[in-house]
Amino acid sequence: MAHINENYRKLQAGYLFPEIGRRVKAFTAENPDATVIRLGIGDVTLPLAPAVVAAMRAAVEELGTEDGFRGYGPENGYDFLLEAIAQHDFAARGVRVETAEIFVSDGSKQDSGNIQEIFGSDCRIAVTDPVYPVYVDTNVMAGRSGAADANGRYAGITYLEANEANGFCPAPPKERVDIAYLCSPNNPTGAVSSRENLEAWVAWARAHDSVLIFDAAYDAFIQDPALPHSIYEIDGARECAIEMRSFSKRAGFTGVRCAYTVVPSELTGSTSSGERVPLNPLWARRHSTKFNSVPFVVQRAAAATFSPEGRKQTGEQVQFYMGNAALLRQGLGDAGFALFGGEHAPYIWMRTPRGLSSWDCFDRFLHDAHVVATPGAGFGAAGEGYIRLSAFNSRENVEHAIARIAKAFGD
Amino acid sequence: MAHINENYRKLQAGYLFPEIGRRVKAFTAENPDATVIRLGIGDVTLPLAPAVVAAMRAAVEELGTEDGFRGYGPENGYDFLLEAIAQHDFAARGVRVETAEIFVSDGSKQDSGNIQEIFGSDCRIAVTDPVYPVYVDTNVMAGRSGAADANGRYAGITYLEANEANGFCPAPPKERVDIAYLCSPNNPTGAVSSRENLEAWVAWARAHDSVLIFDAAYDAFIQDPALPHSIYEIDGARECAIEMRSFSKRAGFTGVRCAYTVVPSELTGSTSSGERVPLNPLWARRHSTKFNSVPFVVQRAAAATFSPEGRKQTGEQVQFYMGNAALLRQGLGDAGFALFGGEHAPYIWMRTPRGLSSWDCFDRFLHDAHVVATPGAGFGAAGEGYIRLSAFNSRENVEHAIARIAKAFGD
Repeated sequence: MAHINENYRKLQAGYLFPEIGRRVKAFTAENPDATVIRLGIGDVTLPLAPAVVAAMRAAVEELGTEDGFRGYGPENGYDFLLEAIAQHDFAARGVRVETAEIFVSDGSKQDSGNIQEIFGSDCRIAVTDPVYPVYVDTNVMAGRSGAADANGRYAGITYLEANEANGFCPAPPKERVDIAYLCSPNNPTGAVSSRENLEAWVAWARAHDSVLIFDAAYDAFIQDPALPHSIYEIDGARECAIEMRSFSKRAGFTGVRCAYTVVPSELTGSTSSGERVPLNPLWARRHSTKFNSVPFVVQRAAAATFSPEGRKQTGEQVQFYMGNAALLRQGLGDAGFALFGGEHAPYIWMRTPRGLSSWDCFDRFLHDAHVVATPGAGFGAAGEGYIRLSAFNSRENVEHAIARIAKAFGD
Repeated sequence: MAHINENYRKLQAGYLFPEIGRRVKAFTAENPDATVIRLGIGDVTLPLAPAVVAAMRAAVEELGTEDGFRGYGPENGYDFLLEAIAQHDFAARGVRVETAEIFVSDGSKQDSGNIQEIFGSDCRIAVTDPVYPVYVDTNVMAGRSGAADANGRYAGITYLEANEANGFCPAPPKERVDIAYLCSPNNPTGAVSSRENLEAWVAWARAHDSVLIFDAAYDAFIQDPALPHSIYEIDGARECAIEMRSFSKRAGFTGVRCAYTVVPSELTGSTSSGERVPLNPLWARRHSTKFNSVPFVVQRAAAATFSPEGRKQTGEQVQFYMGNAALLRQGLGDAGFALFGGEHAPYIWMRTPRGLSSWDCFDRFLHDAHVVATPGAGFGAAGEGYIRLSAFNSRENVEHAIARIAKAFGD
């Protein structure tokens, strides 16, 4: 008799975005004439940059020729991509990351969901609240939690409230935690961690022999050159942190699929008997056993984002979205809404108007303004009373969305 | 203190193919002038079919336009691909599979490694021996085994010996097993399961309330139209079997990355208290939480393999490789080797000459014939004394390999 993994039954409702999709689908079915503007899921809208298209085109042609054809790629990624990452994402900021420490994958969702596999089932994890749901759900599925309470918080997981008082950047916990997930610039709040905040986390992790999982999927949106892009800009982070980056948002790759994870050679965990074990070979084993490299065409596309034209073009895309974020901040701020984030991230975190709950606000925005947002409560109990607006859309749609929300819900 | 997943430490040596890669690299470094012919890892060599290249080219151009750009795809795959799969891989053989039962992924390695996650950690698994290592390793990593013995067999896993006496197609086990992995046409032995063998497995699974995981990654290589391609050609299989298929070998997609898994709506597992739970929503939850769809360009490529030109072109590629397999059978058979498989699969399973162990034979083939094969023992204890030759190479290289092996090791 094949037993199921009963941990799955602890999971609350569906994964957030499919649930939003279902509600939007129901609304549009009932209101076929409504022009719905989607500022919900953080999905890019600009076409791929010309330099990326050119690289993919060339790679496709190569695969159609006898000399250019390539089958299985190196499991961690082609050298041309690993070297470009090490150079542009790290060395250029004075950070040393070796190519053997970089693992190219098909997405940060996958990486941030899979990384927990190399840790023991007894590890206690901490997340900020609100939080990208994948960190929590994948640990629940792996049995690192008890049941959820009425607020959707799982027993056995440490939640660190990100709120207005702490600028949505919580300090490290007091209680024992083995693994902490951090995301900066933050999804969903749009907050960015200061150097001091990250220094406090690294000091805490080193003092408690804990591991930080640092998700920097949105690093390209940082506007202030003094803010850290990488956790490895903090001294001592190579001994305590794994970092993840993605091409999804910085280069419009949500439908192209490329990301990477860095596991420094110094980083160790321990066995239950106290033996130190390097994590890099464990992740390498996981990667080579359960993964089979990113498509060649996609790796060429990712490498093209580092060429001079690619950097210029994708940089302009990022700035276009940040222009949308500035408009949202300006327009909705003028209409009297309390807004956070959106300065170094493509997300605006907004206090719901009129004391609405997050999901009520979601439904009201959809029905009254025909705007899809993401209910803050979908990211955790501390997200209740907030709603997330994404800056990924056309200028025109963003302007319409601002006008509609302001008209329906503004002061 | 972050404990590691200590199950990883039970794993034997590296994953098989990286280990082969290391030995080949060492040999070629020492012998830079040797022309090494690789018949080891089952990696395709022919360029992508023109219909596939055309589809990818068009998809790349689409992504570069405002109207054609697509971000996140539907989590289980685009309808155009799901419908083509349901039609051509199933309906065309009289098998009913709904699109909601198909989950498009980036590889059968991933799917066959990930599928165990939806089952309880107490499930006992059975594999044939020799076996594709991913089935075993991923269950070891998940804690469904004890330590390995001297033969590399893990305590708590049921091994079913595939040998010359049973035509490399073992019968179901007598002992209790919850999940059994089957692969036909088989990697590594090249054997193909008869309808009667699959009927026996389905009857066993239904009688014991067990789940079959049927890996049909090589179905396109079946030459006899009477042999089943899908487990669902067997009555009752929808109640007891998950099936996996891949575009890797049938269309040269090892570096393009596309596959799919079918989880029929009737299929259930049970909770420890005996409640029946459908597996399709569990896999859907896993897929939507830890995966983020296959690149649009790749899904267009996969769909193109089902067009009339795509079917013709990829069919010719399959027949080209099967021509290589026929040559290997003929040439090495004439030279006195005992050979199996290679009639409905791109793999020849060969008894090692002169009673060599598998790894000794691997090293001798490499050093004396400059041919890379895959040691049978790398696939399990019962593979000892055999070596696998792949038919994926140019005609010329296959002919040279036959001549070199026959000269160095033939009668």
